[in-house]
Amino acid sequence: MNNDKMTKDFIGDLSAKIQAQNARGVKELIGDLHPADIAEIFGELSTDEQSYVIDLLDNEISADILLELEEEDRRKILRTFSAKEIADEVITEMDTDDAADIISELSDRQKVEVISQIEDQEHAKEIVELLKFDDDTAGGLMGKEFIKVNKDWSILTAVKQMRRQAEEMEQVFSIYVVDDEDKLLGILSLKKLLTTSSNTKIEDVYNDKIQYVNTFTKDVEVANIITKYDLYEIPVVDELKRLVGVITVDDVIDVIREEAEENYQLAAGITQNVDTDDSIWRLTRARIPWLLIGMFGGIGAAGIMNGLNDELAQYTILLTFVPLIQSTAGNVGIQSSAIVVQSLANGSLKNSSVVKLLSKEFLLGLLNGLIIAVVVLSISHFVFGTTYKISITICLALITVIINAAIIGTFIPMLLHKRGMDPAVSTGPFITTSNDILGVFIYFMIAKVILGF
Amino acid sequence: MNNDKMTKDFIGDLSAKIQAQNARGVKELIGDLHPADIAEIFGELSTDEQSYVIDLLDNEISADILLELEEEDRRKILRTFSAKEIADEVITEMDTDDAADIISELSDRQKVEVISQIEDQEHAKEIVELLKFDDDTAGGLMGKEFIKVNKDWSILTAVKQMRRQAEEMEQVFSIYVVDDEDKLLGILSLKKLLTTSSNTKIEDVYNDKIQYVNTFTKDVEVANIITKYDLYEIPVVDELKRLVGVITVDDVIDVIREEAEENYQLAAGITQNVDTDDSIWRLTRARIPWLLIGMFGGIGAAGIMNGLNDELAQYTILLTFVPLIQSTAGNVGIQSSAIVVQSLANGSLKNSSVVKLLSKEFLLGLLNGLIIAVVVLSISHFVFGTTYKISITICLALITVIINAAIIGTFIPMLLHKRGMDPAVSTGPFITTSNDILGVFIYFMIAKVILGF
Repeated sequence: MNNDKMTKDFIGDLSAKIQAQNARGVKELIGDLHPADIAEIFGELSTDEQSYVIDLLDNEISADILLELEEEDRRKILRTFSAKEIADEVITEMDTDDAADIISELSDRQKVEVISQIEDQEHAKEIVELLKFDDDTAGGLMGKEFIKVNKDWSILTAVKQMRRQAEEMEQVFSIYVVDDEDKLLGILSLKKLLTTSSNTKIEDVYNDKIQYVNTFTKDVEVANIITKYDLYEIPVVDELKRLVGVITVDDVIDVIREEAEENYQLAAGITQNVDTDDSIWRLTRARIPWLLIGMFGGIGAAGIMNGLNDELAQYTILLTFVPLIQSTAGNVGIQSSAIVVQSLANGSLKNSSVVKLLSKEFLLGLLNGLIIAVVVLSISHFVFGTTYKISITICLALITVIINAAIIGTFIPMLLHKRGMDPAVSTGPFITTSNDILGVFIYFMIAKVILGF
Repeated sequence: MNNDKMTKDFIGDLSAKIQAQNARGVKELIGDLHPADIAEIFGELSTDEQSYVIDLLDNEISADILLELEEEDRRKILRTFSAKEIADEVITEMDTDDAADIISELSDRQKVEVISQIEDQEHAKEIVELLKFDDDTAGGLMGKEFIKVNKDWSILTAVKQMRRQAEEMEQVFSIYVVDDEDKLLGILSLKKLLTTSSNTKIEDVYNDKIQYVNTFTKDVEVANIITKYDLYEIPVVDELKRLVGVITVDDVIDVIREEAEENYQLAAGITQNVDTDDSIWRLTRARIPWLLIGMFGGIGAAGIMNGLNDELAQYTILLTFVPLIQSTAGNVGIQSSAIVVQSLANGSLKNSSVVKLLSKEFLLGLLNGLIIAVVVLSISHFVFGTTYKISITICLALITVIINAAIIGTFIPMLLHKRGMDPAVSTGPFITTSNDILGVFIYFMIAKVILGF
């Protein structure tokens, strides 16, 4: 879309025409736009204005716009619709996977009402079937729109079947070949279909070397497979290897994006998916948990130092190096955990053993610790004029803290992953806070031993 | 691939057969695997073993394996090949975009040699054309494999042309419609082609509402467009709107993944793309820069406190709260910058003004600061028994530092973005270090004013 469509003038003009119930004017302004662009414009309109536009436009375009909106905005608009309207104007126009997504967002009561209002019984049955799968599995991602042919048919029959089955589909990539029991055997590419003589039997020309997933395969795993093999879609089979759905690459891109954004936000200490447009309350809800956890870490560190108050009165110089110890521990912990989380996410950390990884992190920590310690040793000695013993204390503490942070940062995400939890939650608050407190604790323990207070 | 293919037994068996130059045995073991799976197995083999397998397998499969490898591994293998071998066995088998990527990794001398050895002059010309585009633009992503038809042709002519042009292509999605000057007019879907009578003129049935990009469009922007409109491929035009290439969604997924991984790693203070498999040296190179920057931040903070040493001797309690101030500042800074970076990356931060964002961050900081300050006030007063003045100092400092960190964390990435730099670099070292030093500085300045030392 041209960016000038989003100018204040354009939005003002559109709002005015909506207020004036000038249907023709509104259609002239946005009738030619792509639904994704209209959805973007919706960000600048009130819910009432949005509902007016949705009512006004063709059902097919309205359904597409609704799909592009954020869940919250969509819910607000759908609240102004009756169950029958949702069924007739929205669900009927959608692919089964999108329809199931929208219906799963409704309340239980509304779900039943909307489904009972869907006129096309076949469509309704398929949607109900999809509703039983978890959101984050292949079953939750797949759609029922695909073309399948029997291995015993001829190419000519396949073309005819394809024309019939493809009617409801926007885009056709592959034709799936099944046996009499509906078991997935392979695919026939459109290219093959176009370039093979029409009385050839499908059995003789289809490709049986294909990738597929089960309904229960995790969405992230599906994304990794699609990416690894550069696929445009992947068939989904049930426990009996019967073809039950197909996942297209656009759904998988959303999975990749969401997973990456979630990991990123967790690493940055943000607990909900937010962006700059969200309200201050929502942003605060997403940000305050980590700040509070971090705060308790800082207070814990203060507690440790406070407990040593008398001993430390003669060693205030030790206190001035606490920020150094602490930020170094935090940085190392985040680095280590981020590498593990990412390697787990993109599937590259499959075959490494925990022991091997931890010993590597130990060596890494030692190496990084030595480098940092040498630099700090010179600076603290020559610039701050710290005594020999204090310099040694600081450096020894740095090395220990770095190794400790590297090992914790590696171990925790691996542990979470093994227990079936999302390792990304460990990158933010947990690693930082535990390293804050542990770092300060280790520092003063080492000081106690060396300085003997 | 079955995971059992990656067992030690399997790799051991394969290695033994390679050592014994048992070509048939090797082929039996891996001949049926997908190139992406063989590339994964390559991770467990030496370069010599890899070269043996590449030599052994069909050129087409070898080329696919090479494409799946990491750049470093690919380079090692290609070093054992002559320019003629690279041209004949590798480049000839590849799509133009992949071929251009591989050639661009070679030394300048090798580039010329390999190109001069490509037998198919048309293929060579297309590759040379692609080489002139920057890696991170649409021109650098696009391939020359697409089907185009003239608007004046009939469907029948189009089908014939398609069959001819499609010969070299793995997958066909769309047929591009151009005029006599080669200017892009629209697309004809395969579905339309299959369902329209053969003497219809293309002009009458093609779809002119399509998305396209220019050769100079940034790769991240291309990814956003493909995601936004749920496309499988997008045509690329030159300055005269002539169709010059097509970008497929699999290339774009790589862009999305790489961008997300890069932002994530930068936020975690990692300066190079690494994973757990990399060598300790490489991991250290990626991790030490931020640790050093963070170290200087910590030393800077120590310097500030050291300068106030005499005054602080009577206020050691102030020093014990430095970790709290510092980690809070760091956390807020990362949160704010991460939200901006992500909103910039996914394109949702297009229409907001800097002033609006900064005032929002100010309010957010104030709100978060107040919440944290109230909690800290009670704890410091009741648990640590700090005096009234010191409690006020700590809380006022917390609020100021949080607001300051929120504003810096928002402003810096927006500034970098405006200057055409990657805003993600600001999430890690820069924000943290500047907040470390600034936080401590603000804290003691406020203490100075309130406590009057």
